[in-house]
Amino acid sequence: MSQYENVTVIKKANLYFDGKVSSRTVLFADGTKKTLGIMLPGEYEFGTDAKEIMEILAGDLKVLLPGESEWISISGEGEFTVPANSKFKLQVASITDYACSYIQE
Amino acid sequence: MSQYENVTVIKKANLYFDGKVSSRTVLFADGTKKTLGIMLPGEYEFGTDAKEIMEILAGDLKVLLPGESEWISISGEGEFTVPANSKFKLQVASITDYACSYIQE
Repeated sequence: MSQYENVTVIKKANLYFDGKVSSRTVLFADGTKKTLGIMLPGEYEFGTDAKEIMEILAGDLKVLLPGESEWISISGEGEFTVPANSKFKLQVASITDYACSYIQE
Repeated sequence: MSQYENVTVIKKANLYFDGKVSSRTVLFADGTKKTLGIMLPGEYEFGTDAKEIMEILAGDLKVLLPGESEWISISGEGEFTVPANSKFKLQVASITDYACSYIQE
């Protein structure tokens, strides 16, 4: 799926880490939410509320999921899931384009 | 209007200047197009195809429109229009969030 149809987009961006990470919120008719974001090179730690499915559309990064000691490498496209109410770390080596789905359980 | 409803969003980002400028494309039912973008601090020159109406949602920047010798300053919210098939320059002093409308004439 290369595009989201019949959605609502919030105009204002979400900005993190001095804008090195930014995203736009997309709302779906079924009440679900995704964000489309860009991460510039850097090291970041994020916390989740809902469970998150991170789809990497393009990029080069390493991910440390909660409770793990091994970093996962993603080059190009990839996907990882982060449990609700947890923290994960990212080492972004080149500009990374992502779509994040928030899963209410 | 704080959000765009009943639209299609292209998932993949548009990236310029090593990702210091990025945007997402939003398509409307009437066939028109806008982009929602972020510009990090820096100096940029852009060219237009269609006429562009740039709505600054937040930021701090100066704009040099084609044929002008005076820079326009925008802090916070603002708007400027760029003719089709022309070039304009930007000096972005702090992270700038924008919505750009492409006007076919």
